[in-house]
Parts: sequence; structure tokens; C-alpha cells
Amino acid sequence: MGGLAFRLLLLPFLAPVATTAVNPALRALASLNLQIFPTFQPEEANNYSIYYFDQKIDHFGFYNTKTFKQRYLISDKYWKTYDGVILFYTGNEGDITWFSNHTGFMWDVAEKLKALLVFAEHRYYGESLPFGDDSFKDSKHLNFLTSEQALADFAELIRHLKRTVPGADGQPVIAIGGSYGGVLAAWFRMKYPHLVVGALAASAPIWQFEELTPCGVNLNSEDIQRLKDWLSETWVNLAMVNYPYPANFLKPLPSWPVKEVCQYLTNPYMSDSLLVQNIYQALNVYYNYSGQTRCNNISETTIGNLGSRVWGYQTCTEIILPFCTNGVDDMFEARSWDLDKYSDDCYKQWGVRPRPSWVTTLYGGKDIRSHSNIIFSNGDLDPWSGGGVTEDLSDTLVAVNIPDGAHHLDLRPSTETDPPSLQLARSVELRHMKQWVSDFYGNYRKQP
Amino acid sequence: MGGLAFRLLLLPFLAPVATTAVNPALRALASLNLQIFPTFQPEEANNYSIYYFDQKIDHFGFYNTKTFKQRYLISDKYWKTYDGVILFYTGNEGDITWFSNHTGFMWDVAEKLKALLVFAEHRYYGESLPFGDDSFKDSKHLNFLTSEQALADFAELIRHLKRTVPGADGQPVIAIGGSYGGVLAAWFRMKYPHLVVGALAASAPIWQFEELTPCGVNLNSEDIQRLKDWLSETWVNLAMVNYPYPANFLKPLPSWPVKEVCQYLTNPYMSDSLLVQNIYQALNVYYNYSGQTRCNNISETTIGNLGSRVWGYQTCTEIILPFCTNGVDDMFEARSWDLDKYSDDCYKQWGVRPRPSWVTTLYGGKDIRSHSNIIFSNGDLDPWSGGGVTEDLSDTLVAVNIPDGAHHLDLRPSTETDPPSLQLARSVELRHMKQWVSDFYGNYRKQP
Repeated sequence: MGGLAFRLLLLPFLAPVATTAVNPALRALASLNLQIFPTFQPEEANNYSIYYFDQKIDHFGFYNTKTFKQRYLISDKYWKTYDGVILFYTGNEGDITWFSNHTGFMWDVAEKLKALLVFAEHRYYGESLPFGDDSFKDSKHLNFLTSEQALADFAELIRHLKRTVPGADGQPVIAIGGSYGGVLAAWFRMKYPHLVVGALAASAPIWQFEELTPCGVNLNSEDIQRLKDWLSETWVNLAMVNYPYPANFLKPLPSWPVKEVCQYLTNPYMSDSLLVQNIYQALNVYYNYSGQTRCNNISETTIGNLGSRVWGYQTCTEIILPFCTNGVDDMFEARSWDLDKYSDDCYKQWGVRPRPSWVTTLYGGKDIRSHSNIIFSNGDLDPWSGGGVTEDLSDTLVAVNIPDGAHHLDLRPSTETDPPSLQLARSVELRHMKQWVSDFYGNYRKQP
Repeated sequence: MGGLAFRLLLLPFLAPVATTAVNPALRALASLNLQIFPTFQPEEANNYSIYYFDQKIDHFGFYNTKTFKQRYLISDKYWKTYDGVILFYTGNEGDITWFSNHTGFMWDVAEKLKALLVFAEHRYYGESLPFGDDSFKDSKHLNFLTSEQALADFAELIRHLKRTVPGADGQPVIAIGGSYGGVLAAWFRMKYPHLVVGALAASAPIWQFEELTPCGVNLNSEDIQRLKDWLSETWVNLAMVNYPYPANFLKPLPSWPVKEVCQYLTNPYMSDSLLVQNIYQALNVYYNYSGQTRCNNISETTIGNLGSRVWGYQTCTEIILPFCTNGVDDMFEARSWDLDKYSDDCYKQWGVRPRPSWVTTLYGGKDIRSHSNIIFSNGDLDPWSGGGVTEDLSDTLVAVNIPDGAHHLDLRPSTETDPPSLQLARSVELRHMKQWVSDFYGNYRKQP
């Protein structure tokens, strides 16, 4: 692919960035919260109240008794206490107002389900910082950033709402989330089925976690590697946001941006210099669709904000997603998964080492059939769908596949250009949720 | 009841004991491991190998990376790898060899189920001390003594066995435990259903946990209160070990010891001094059936060994079992549940404060119907059965009630004097376990 030409042409773009242990695919999940430009939004989407709840910093020990303020948003416009439902967004790696703004689906279905909407911020993101400005200081302060603690926050918050919001106590709760938030929604239903009657886990790669499979060694100079990472990540991001309409989710983009990009990359047999020119054009679809960008910075997608920096800690501890490419079955250069090196990099950066098998031990890996009431939705265009649940596991663990869907497209607000497959997916999701709610009231009102 | 006469007669027995926040009923659960005198035992019951596994001290954080040696026992005499099962005892508050010696049921059914027996020691008990001699030093060192950490130990140990013991990987695992160990067995199935196909939770008071219900105030002088506690605890212990045969479980006792005791306590209208004499006779059934005891020590049942001391920490943090008596519907003096005082006492003794609602938040309280494959067995003679599950919750969450049964009598070895109700209970338990195993192999071998 003409490594030298690349190097010469693109060296000016290279800015000094910290060496990071996180591979491009992992960063891609985190990069979802890089920029905040809501696109299509129901009018109500900003119509929420902001609250704070005192959460224990450590739910799993009794030595540290300190608390912090967890932020959450509430909208009760369409809520009916007699036969409504609480839709609870299990916040992921970013500012919760951003997820509220980008989860139009919840606002769209609120009226149909007579739902109270709750958006709960994930600890260590947005304003929900356990140790304030010191939260990211060192591994001691980061010690309480785990999925278990986050799920326990959600559990305590739900019990708090049931205790304090009149009418909430007799209501079913449904967990909803996308991407890592979708993983949390699924895990929440698995671990706290007494608190949520079901979960909609959109584009949740819960099966990206596996025992490690080393797949070779691949050495590169650091700068070249960084450049390649940046390219890889860009292609991954593009696939994730390959929406059927012009959108501004990560970046302002045309409809079906992958098609736009690929027109520049149809011929692998051109000269190195022409290929580089074309790659530049392709990149510009993503990085400069607005025409405002003068210079590309290959660190832009990686360490864009605090949120994604801390996501790096999570991918260095629990959220280990072994990822490798072989350059044969995929469009990326061969890239190995080297746990030892990964671990060393994590230790250098965060002072911690990953436990790759812990998530499987805790949440069950592929053996989750004893659970119930989880919808796993995936877009076939989304690179993360490979780690998702794309076949029904039982009558109540159902897969909803969206052939024309990108990364949790179903959670976006409905638009006139939604493909029929997307409309169908949303109606299936709604049907399941209605079923959970009616089952709940059937059982609840039957009790003495 | 003649408080003054009591005081005069029994003051010589009073030895200085530390004020403890733990009420008698709570101590009763812990006192099960005070003495180690196995009674009827299948010959195999000592035929195990002892192993140690490196467990992370903190499963839920990445800052403390230290490990400790968890002890576990294994017996494979009857194990068949083709269609067997792993019976996994979820160790509770004491030395694991004691539980192995006293859980004759597992040894009795090993051949029928072609079972590998595993007895896993609970952290902070027996030899499984996270910080060695410093383990009980202060609240910082005790911080990792929680049910969540203990369950995570069990989970990691099972995965370790599956990885390292040839033939174990394709085997179903059933969790078994009694008393707090039974609570752990049930919780383990709830939280890690991918690791155990079912659980036998014997005399597990999982519903003793509730939101608090204050029930009055009751003040007494400290010594008198201690004496009364000791009496109350003795009656509770007697009911727990009211076995149909002469046994040596907590103490050497005749068959049906409650009957023996009650012959001295039939007339409430006698004079104070005669009543005290009779109470003394009644106590002697429990404390001096062997005729060797010269002097009763009212601290004997409470702080007998390290195990039960540390149990006090658990009842001061997670395992909050609100317990009160009113002296009207029960045979005990009125005793209130005062959380504030309880919390202050806990803080004085351990430097921690209880979180009474956490266990309900985490494990679901009474709302556990979405789980499956748990047998809740209870003896009607056991005071703890009041906090147990004594009615079927579903086809697979079943209650086994033993009218003539004391505290987890079903886990004891079978004897010729077992009442028919006990024999029936064990056969029902065995039938369920066989069903789980055959379901497992049915599904497992069906998979490609």
C-alpha cells in the first residue's frame, strides 16, 4: 500500500499524541461521544428536568463511605401512573444530556407507552464524578470505575425513584441503551431482573468478549502505526454512522456516507501516489464534509475529550475486546492481539492491568439462555454487529436485525427517510416492550 | 419472670465479654461452627484432597492486585466424567473441613449422581484469609469480606476447575449450601446462572432481609441483657438442632432435645426460685448433657472462635436480619429493633455501618420469580424457616418443607432414625438435581 508515500505525504498531519494502548476498534465505541450536534430531534427531547442522587462511591465495600452526586434527567410529560412504564436509559461513556438528545426513540415512544423517561449518567462521565476534579488522577481514584459499580448505581437510583416519586412504585421499568449503554442494559436485566422487566440492548456487542486468540505479530514504526490506526478508526466510524439520511452524529455527513467514501476506493491497482490522493479524498468525506477543515489531526478521533480518555481505562480493565484483522478477510492491515503488550501499555498509561476473562466469568459470555426479556438489536452495516446477538436465543431473548441499519440506528428519532426495515424493527421492539408491561400488570394486579 | 432472682443466682456465671451489636438470633446462625464434633458420617466424608487457589482479594476493582490462597476440598471417588455432575458446596462462615464433615448428604448422593464433590471455603474463614493474620485487623482489611466477593471467588474457582481438571469442562455444576451457605447457594444461582445449573439452598433465610420495621423500645441493664441474650440464643440453638437422634452437632445432645428441655418448663406459675432452678435444669440439657461441665459461661455461645467473630462484621454490613420479639406471640422477652443503636454499636466494634437495604437491592428480596432451578428446603422446627421460602414460587423454584426437620437436617447424613418426611424431602431434592443434570446434557449434547 505504499507505506513510504504515506509517510511523506502525511507526516505534516502528525501531532504528538500519547501512546495509547487502546486499539482503533475500541476507541470507535468511545468516540461516539466526541461531538455534540444533535440532528433530528423530537421537540420534547430537551424537555427534561435535571436531578442529582447521592450514590455510594463503593457499593461493594464498607470502608469507603463517601458519596458523590450522580446526575440524571427526567421527563414525565406523557407518563401515566396507572398503566405506564419507566423507560430507564443506562448511561454509557459520556455526558448524559448527549445521550438524551441522541436517543430520539425514547422520546418518540413515550406517548405510546405512557412512559416516564429517565436518563441516568454513568459514573466518571459528564458531571457524575466520584472524586470531582481528582476522579481521573490515578488508579486509586479510578478504582471505582467498573460496570458493576455503574449497574449498582442504576439499581440504587431505581429504588430511590420508587421510594420518592409518587406513582413510581407500582410501575414496571425497562432498561434501554445503545452501544456500551446497550451492553449495560442487557447486563442490568441479567443481574437485576427484580428491578427491570426487560431490556432493549441496541447494538450491544456483548459477545465481543471472549477468551483470547492470539493471531500473529505485526510491528510498525510508531508514527506510521498511529496513522494507520487513525485510518482504521475512520473506516470503522464511517460504517457505524452509515445512516440513510444526512446526519450530524459524529460528524456532519451526507446520507449513506460509506457509498460516498467508497467511490474513491474502487481500484486497488492504481499508483501509490494516486492511491494516497484518493484516500485523502475519501477521508475528506468524513473529516471535511462541511468544507471547514484546513488540516487533519490524526489524534482527533482518539483523545477528543475526557469521556473517551476515561473509556481507555475501562478498556484497560474490564472491557477487553480482543480485536484483530488479517488483511485477507477484511479491508484492514493485519493487526495482532498481543495481550502482554496490551497489558504493559495499560500499566504504563493507567497503572492497572486488564482481566480479560472477568467479564465472561461475571456476565456469562455466550451462556445467557437462562435469562429473559432482552431485545438485542443490530444493524447489519454496523461493524459491531459481529459481536452482537443476531439470532433469537429463546422466546424472550430476541434478536432484531436491521439490514440497512448502522450503529444503534433504531435508537435515533424516526424520520421520513427511515428504511422499511428500520420501521419494522422499531415496531417489533415496541411490541415486546408492551408485552413486558402488560405481563407486569397482569402479575402485579393479580397479587393480593 | 423474676429478674432479681436470676441476677442473684446467675451473677457468678457472668464473665466479662465484649459488648456486641449482634443480636442472639444472628449469633445463632454463626454459632453453627463453634465446635467440631462430627456425629454420623459416611466413611468417605474425610476422603478428600485439599487444594488452594489464588483468588484476587478484590474482584470489583483494579487498584488492589494482590491475591490470597482460597482453600477447597475435592473428592472424586464416584465421579464419572461422561454423565456426572459437580456438586459445589458454597462455604459459609467457618472452616470448610467442618462443613465437609457435616454435610453427609453430599457424600451420600455422590455415587447416585456420579458426582465430583467440591467444598469451597468462604474468604475470611478457616485458612482462606486474604491478609493472613492481619485479615481482621481493621475495617480496611475487612473491606473485602462481602457476599459479592465470596460469590465471585466461587465463580472464579469453578472456571479454574473447568479449565484445569480434565473432564470438568463439559459437566454441569450444582451449588449446595446450608444456612448462610444456603443463602449463598441461592444467590449464586441467581447471579451466575451460567456457572451452575441449579442450587439446593437448605434452611436459607433469604427472606429474613427486609425493610426495617421498628417495634418499640426495650432497655435493660447490660449484664441482665447479656444473660437474657444467652438464654434466648440457647433456646434458638436448641430448636435448630432438634434432631431425631442423639447428635453432637453444636453440643452432645439426646434425641429430640427440645422435648427434654421442655419437661422442666411446663408450669409458668411456680415461684421465682423454683422457676430458676428449672431453667437451670433445662439449660443443662444443652450445656451439660455429657455431665462434664462445672460452670456455665454466658459468653460461650457468642464469641467462641474467630469464625463467629468475623460473622459479626458481616451482620454489621450486609447481612442485616432485623429481628424482634414481642413476648406475646413468642417465648422471648420483648426486644426491639433499633437501627440507629445497632449502627452505632457496629461502628464502635468494627468501624463500619450497616446498609440494611443493600442486600434487597442486589439480590431482589421477595421478587425472585424470574430465576429458576433453586430448591429451598426448610425444617418446620427450625426458627430460621420463618425467613425461608416455604411455598413454590414456580415450577423450578420449589419449596421442600420438612415437618419434623431442624436446621438444614436434610444436609446431614442419612440415618436409620430419619423420619419419613426427611427421607421424602431428600428424594425430592435428588429428583430435581437429576432433572437439572439431564436437562443440561440434553441441551449440551444437542449443540453442534
